[in-house]
Amino acid sequence: MPRPKVYLAGPDVFLPNAVEIGARKKELCEQHGFNGVFPLDEIPPPLSVPAEFALATFDICVKMMRACQLAVANLSPFRGVSMDVGTAVELGFMWASGKPVFGYTNAQEDYKVRVEAANVAGDLDVEDFGFFDNLMCESIVRNSGGSVVRHTPARGREFSDLTGFEECLAQAAQVLLESS
Amino acid sequence: MPRPKVYLAGPDVFLPNAVEIGARKKELCEQHGFNGVFPLDEIPPPLSVPAEFALATFDICVKMMRACQLAVANLSPFRGVSMDVGTAVELGFMWASGKPVFGYTNAQEDYKVRVEAANVAGDLDVEDFGFFDNLMCESIVRNSGGSVVRHTPARGREFSDLTGFEECLAQAAQVLLESS
Repeated sequence: MPRPKVYLAGPDVFLPNAVEIGARKKELCEQHGFNGVFPLDEIPPPLSVPAEFALATFDICVKMMRACQLAVANLSPFRGVSMDVGTAVELGFMWASGKPVFGYTNAQEDYKVRVEAANVAGDLDVEDFGFFDNLMCESIVRNSGGSVVRHTPARGREFSDLTGFEECLAQAAQVLLESS
Repeated sequence: MPRPKVYLAGPDVFLPNAVEIGARKKELCEQHGFNGVFPLDEIPPPLSVPAEFALATFDICVKMMRACQLAVANLSPFRGVSMDVGTAVELGFMWASGKPVFGYTNAQEDYKVRVEAANVAGDLDVEDFGFFDNLMCESIVRNSGGSVVRHTPARGREFSDLTGFEECLAQAAQVLLESS
């Protein structure tokens, strides 16, 4: 059987060492019997209009997701209390395509705890389900047969710590490879 | 032809007057030839385990999205610089299902401007495409044949102002109804 292709979703692409992180994630995929696909594997040609470059990047990401059999997503808080919204779009895309999503976050606390700590609740309702973020996000991982991996990284390694990532690959291997 | 069903995505469900906002959105849908479906139209029975209630809510949202032909999403910043992540999941879900998504935000500035104003860039790359948020979000609306509506509401009406919502319905009517 060819190795299942894993779409490596997450805000990792915005890191200064994004390419290095992508390479490391792919190595770990290999070790767990998967073939990792990182969004930066393919970049559109330079386009003079920024919006056109963005739309071409979107097309590539969609093409990559269609070519993958599953996703492992970095669900860590990004520029606020919640996960990266681009990654959230990809969660929904993969799930609607009938593909499982596994995920990890380098934050330990429940969503409600983080919202209260950041004092951003306002007078709006705050979900209190013991989930890492909005219910749409965690439900996809649970319905995929996984559980969201929460890990506390060393200070300064909030984006580069891949302990949770590796645990997701183990979950994915158990759900996909051992059942086939 | 039966009226197309519009999934009313957005963090509106967390508002203290969520039901009222949902009813108002449905009225506006009627006026534009659509049938609005609001996530709170159906609520799971009380379940003693919070996670089970959340998963049942997820199932209902998925069922509703499957029953709709398009979505109109509230893309306004929610508890930070970016849009609500649950809504972002729904954008991806609808798009993967081949359904158009229209959207509005009650913030006028580009994503990059908001990130810099909030001082949350860190040393990570900030997308600079003239988009309202992450490229995955805006690209879906553009590929649907619409354009993200940005509107500056009166102070205190950041969540309740429906000017942009109504403009999305006009866009949707033009793309869907007039082409059929």
